[in-house]
Amino acid sequence: MGGDHGVVTTVPAACQLLKETSKIKLILVGQHDVIVDALRKQKMTVGGRLLIQHASEIVEMHESPALALRGKKDSSMRVTINLVKDGTANACVSAGNTGALMATARYVLKTLPGIDRPAMCTILPTVDTHTHMLDLGANVDTNAEHLFQFAVMGSVLVSAIDDIESPTVGLLNIGEEAIKGNEQVKQAAKLLESSHINYFGFIEGDDIYQGKVNVVVCDGFAGNVALKSSEGVAKMISHYLKKSFNKNLMTRLAGLFAYGVLKQFRDQMDPRRYNGASLLGLRGIVIKSHGGADAFAFKCAIKEAMIEVEKNVPERLEKELQSVLVEQRAV
Amino acid sequence: MGGDHGVVTTVPAACQLLKETSKIKLILVGQHDVIVDALRKQKMTVGGRLLIQHASEIVEMHESPALALRGKKDSSMRVTINLVKDGTANACVSAGNTGALMATARYVLKTLPGIDRPAMCTILPTVDTHTHMLDLGANVDTNAEHLFQFAVMGSVLVSAIDDIESPTVGLLNIGEEAIKGNEQVKQAAKLLESSHINYFGFIEGDDIYQGKVNVVVCDGFAGNVALKSSEGVAKMISHYLKKSFNKNLMTRLAGLFAYGVLKQFRDQMDPRRYNGASLLGLRGIVIKSHGGADAFAFKCAIKEAMIEVEKNVPERLEKELQSVLVEQRAV
Repeated sequence: MGGDHGVVTTVPAACQLLKETSKIKLILVGQHDVIVDALRKQKMTVGGRLLIQHASEIVEMHESPALALRGKKDSSMRVTINLVKDGTANACVSAGNTGALMATARYVLKTLPGIDRPAMCTILPTVDTHTHMLDLGANVDTNAEHLFQFAVMGSVLVSAIDDIESPTVGLLNIGEEAIKGNEQVKQAAKLLESSHINYFGFIEGDDIYQGKVNVVVCDGFAGNVALKSSEGVAKMISHYLKKSFNKNLMTRLAGLFAYGVLKQFRDQMDPRRYNGASLLGLRGIVIKSHGGADAFAFKCAIKEAMIEVEKNVPERLEKELQSVLVEQRAV
Repeated sequence: MGGDHGVVTTVPAACQLLKETSKIKLILVGQHDVIVDALRKQKMTVGGRLLIQHASEIVEMHESPALALRGKKDSSMRVTINLVKDGTANACVSAGNTGALMATARYVLKTLPGIDRPAMCTILPTVDTHTHMLDLGANVDTNAEHLFQFAVMGSVLVSAIDDIESPTVGLLNIGEEAIKGNEQVKQAAKLLESSHINYFGFIEGDDIYQGKVNVVVCDGFAGNVALKSSEGVAKMISHYLKKSFNKNLMTRLAGLFAYGVLKQFRDQMDPRRYNGASLLGLRGIVIKSHGGADAFAFKCAIKEAMIEVEKNVPERLEKELQSVLVEQRAV
């Protein structure tokens, strides 16, 4: 029940989703009284498909991951991940501190065999449909082998979620030619070329949104920069669009005529629809919601968890990783 | 006279600019007959403020920089940079192969004392005004000292061009907290904190377009990814906006009513206005235009060169670097 807004957004999101679908059972983890209070405002009571698990501590948004991991064993984050570990829950969804979530999930759940570091993966819109990108900031100093592992994980996720047998995988680089890029990207390309992954080649930042590939692989620094720069540009464009229509009486009138179109356009571009990044490579499903998510966005993150549970993502990933390990031993 | 379109865009750009301002004299460098032909189409003749310098060779857009540097000593790119070196020209503007331009400029002009590697810097729009970002891809494996040099160069450029006495400088990172980021970014922060640069701190991708700082410093990989991802998102948004207004008769009608507003909005967001990246840190002014620039965009790149000549950017940079060297020796 973390994030920038806490129960104010997470509880309404949970309540809305329970009304929308009967396929889910939710355990709200956090301070019992606070959650009960928030549920009362939603005119919901505990029981049936809605449970509460008390957790006394809170990991602050800017707390050090190491301190949170060592010092707060009864945080809502830790308790939720424990529920996944012992099989009580099928997935954990959190809007809390990303670093602490990653460190705790890695410590409690452990990584799958063949995975050194988990990676964060999100869905992004493209001109035609959508793509997936990883890593988004879980790892900053990565080598070629890590990038290769990200490619395997992204490929399995997209294969499971989008029902694509062999998704195309592109490596994010600063040019499409083989001579360009840094060392780890060039070496990762070699690893991918000699694997059974459907490797497309290098792609550049603008290709992400052209939908050139189903999976975009990059280190966490580049991925985070790409994602946040994109968010920044989108916000700026929206700012100028609003400003243009609010300039004077005439432009406001034009805005009224175009209202329906602009609204549909905004809905289509709504970043909240893409909320919910997967922490891939763990022995369990962990979804990270944007810290500033509202109820609608947080609900999208829970839905992402539902899909990954339905599609057995960790099991499929484990199976695929075994065949990759066999492939690597054969080389 | 390079780039994706060659004289088809560069010559009209030159002719338009000569008509717009009497403050500039242009030397068109390339294959003489081809340029004369292109000038004829513009009803322009050589003489006065318009000269031609013949160069027999062409550096292809995907040619290796090393091969271009060694093998094509009479390329338009090389000849132009020679003109800057010998003082015949005050600046070089090219839409050609970026890597070859950088390698040739560095070899012929040399870097300023205190600069290990030149960096590419461009202007970017923000919600209020604009910002500058460097490096954009000239350097991929940078250390903290390089990032510090980029900060000095960006600061001097913005100070000269925007008349800001002490521009704010931000380091692009994946979080604002000191514990986040990779090693070189953390070390660069320390160097900047103990310098006389007006160091703001870490910024994230979305802060670029919020205009949090006057200068955004990053390694070339991150900078290129940020820039191209931003371009990609902007293109995608424009695609969806067009599509929304072209859906049916009613939406087209709404588009007609909103035409003036949408046109003004598009003009304001026009990326061509920001064309022309500076290769900073050289003993001379070299401006790189986007390869796919049209005449309007290429004209903007020439204007950028004009401003840097007027403002004596390399001289100001050399002076600043001397004081930085003195400051470093004192530590």
